[in-house]
Amino acid sequence: MDVKVSEGIVSQLSTESRLAPESGIVEVVNSAREREDLIPLWVGEGDLPTPDFICRAAKQSLDAGETFYTYQRGIPELRSALADYHAGLHGRSFSDQRFFVTGSGMQAIQIAVTSVVSPGDEVLVPSPAWPNLAAAVEIRGGRAVTVPMMFRPGGWELDMDRLMAARTARTRAIFINTPCNPTGWVASCEDLRGILDFARKHGLWIIADEVYARFFFGEGGRAPSFADVAEDDDRILFVNTFSKNWSMTGWRIGWLSGPSEIGQVIENLIQYATSGVPVFSQRAAAAALTEGETYLQDQISRAKTGRQLVIEQLSSSPRFRFAVPEGAFYAFFGIDGVTDARRLALDLVRDTGVGLAPGTAFGTAGDGFLRLCFARSTDYLREGLGRIVQWIEQV
Amino acid sequence: MDVKVSEGIVSQLSTESRLAPESGIVEVVNSAREREDLIPLWVGEGDLPTPDFICRAAKQSLDAGETFYTYQRGIPELRSALADYHAGLHGRSFSDQRFFVTGSGMQAIQIAVTSVVSPGDEVLVPSPAWPNLAAAVEIRGGRAVTVPMMFRPGGWELDMDRLMAARTARTRAIFINTPCNPTGWVASCEDLRGILDFARKHGLWIIADEVYARFFFGEGGRAPSFADVAEDDDRILFVNTFSKNWSMTGWRIGWLSGPSEIGQVIENLIQYATSGVPVFSQRAAAAALTEGETYLQDQISRAKTGRQLVIEQLSSSPRFRFAVPEGAFYAFFGIDGVTDARRLALDLVRDTGVGLAPGTAFGTAGDGFLRLCFARSTDYLREGLGRIVQWIEQV
Repeated sequence: MDVKVSEGIVSQLSTESRLAPESGIVEVVNSAREREDLIPLWVGEGDLPTPDFICRAAKQSLDAGETFYTYQRGIPELRSALADYHAGLHGRSFSDQRFFVTGSGMQAIQIAVTSVVSPGDEVLVPSPAWPNLAAAVEIRGGRAVTVPMMFRPGGWELDMDRLMAARTARTRAIFINTPCNPTGWVASCEDLRGILDFARKHGLWIIADEVYARFFFGEGGRAPSFADVAEDDDRILFVNTFSKNWSMTGWRIGWLSGPSEIGQVIENLIQYATSGVPVFSQRAAAAALTEGETYLQDQISRAKTGRQLVIEQLSSSPRFRFAVPEGAFYAFFGIDGVTDARRLALDLVRDTGVGLAPGTAFGTAGDGFLRLCFARSTDYLREGLGRIVQWIEQV
Repeated sequence: MDVKVSEGIVSQLSTESRLAPESGIVEVVNSAREREDLIPLWVGEGDLPTPDFICRAAKQSLDAGETFYTYQRGIPELRSALADYHAGLHGRSFSDQRFFVTGSGMQAIQIAVTSVVSPGDEVLVPSPAWPNLAAAVEIRGGRAVTVPMMFRPGGWELDMDRLMAARTARTRAIFINTPCNPTGWVASCEDLRGILDFARKHGLWIIADEVYARFFFGEGGRAPSFADVAEDDDRILFVNTFSKNWSMTGWRIGWLSGPSEIGQVIENLIQYATSGVPVFSQRAAAAALTEGETYLQDQISRAKTGRQLVIEQLSSSPRFRFAVPEGAFYAFFGIDGVTDARRLALDLVRDTGVGLAPGTAFGTAGDGFLRLCFARSTDYLREGLGRIVQWIEQV
């Protein structure tokens, strides 16, 4: 690549697009592309393909010729299945008019951000955090204001005073990801009530990412949700995805839920983003919701086993710093005496072939940490963890 | 719906999202939902489902378990097939690094707009135009500056002086859709050179929508393209889709092409929009490119037949005002003495069951006109046109 030419034409792009960050994982991934003994645990994705009963629904839809334009908000069957799924989770009814099908959880975030943030507005983002929300805000011309969470061996903590102190006259929304990727933090009902009170008092929106709600290792079968403490007309936009629960990362289908009164605005934003989601993918997603509970329970069991293995192995050396994850399927850990997570991830994959994501990819509050996805088969995970533990003894 | 509540919470959304326009066709569509004898010609979509050889590629990919995250820029097979396809069309080679797979032609536009427009910037848009580009610019916080084209019975005309006069210090890009939806206007090589010279002189980007390039009724098998007159490093972003050529409207897959030097920025924008397109859809798109030429030629023949029928019928009464479309697959016509296209479309569908899109959906320059999609089977089209002609004699 001719760098001069590149700088020339790249400099002609919009400032926001030029400043959009590259994935903080890619450098590590690229450094190990050719390795044959690689154990990649860097991406937030399991190792199983989408189950047959879900693929079958898509194939049947294709065979039936469902290849035309469709409803921007999602097909009625899927919106209704989403309402039923949430009713089952929360023990109360939901209107299907609250649900909007999106082309990935990422797109649900993009649309949520666009719908509440104007250029110049601010969004509060507890950190470490999955970086894509902040990037979407900045591309929009808004500002993501990070609020560092505190690492304690007993668990990460969100300091409400610090969150409140970060608010300015331009603050429009708070992003809350619970269970949290990457830290495994789960907001308690008390946390959620505190955040909601704060949001109500100042007229802020909450963008609630509860993608990992089902991967919860406490009591009750799911993590506490804003749906437990809020009213239907509270200013909350839930963003979610089919990716994690039903091994559908490659499908790019998710959903947004919020007050049904904003339906026309959400429909318009979908129209001008991707104009809807393929019907055949929506049929697959509906199958996931209506026939996928057993499969999901298996995935949760698998994550529990993986988590147990991680806890055992990371407890084997006092040099590991970590809080036991209460939810999601990641271990987020540091190594005593090591502060440069990027260097650590590069060294680790070079020396052992185990690929982890550097904590810096999740904001400066993640520096010194590594993220490991434990939604994997036991043998595979055991091998990866074994290599890490052995390596630690030598460095 | 409780309007007070609605106004309340809708008023809390971002200004840009609240102002995003509803589709100008929906009101007409809704007015006729229950009709059994409906002949809907309002949408830009053919009446054939996606052909088997394309669906088969997707189904095989699903069977092979290709359901994981993939390349943000698109799978190498598809990028390479896109380069070959363009090489075939233009008789010269293209680097596969110029091509980026997007989740619809609409998303290609959204990403093109984001990459060159900052909030406050302006984009010149000849009008009448497919409204989604302008909406994407306005949602971005930019301004779409329409440049009215002139209707002449010999064909719509783009007045270069008028285009140039619309430029201000904030102008960042020009949107050119050729062949044009809805007018059927096709830019000549001379037009393209003039626009390119103007863009080069003032450092403007061109967003080139050549979606209907193959539906061209002049000599040469395809419409003139910016690729005929520009260099690879010109500031042109081509946006395109698989929807129209290969009956894939429901798949939401398209592509963007531009200078390969901006690849990392485009990759990042895809990451923060939908993070890529399903591999199984990309396999289908690759099949469309590599095995779909015969199918495409059939579609073009079909459009030619439809166009001929439209010309004959609209020539049957001196009350029809229209220019023979040089490309795309729409008739854009007015009726003498009628200025309110919205009213006309509503009356027409009520009285005859023929559904057309009001020209107002394509900007004020389209008022007084109706858009009819002629990518339909001959019998169906003949019936629809017959009803229109008969109705005209009575009103």
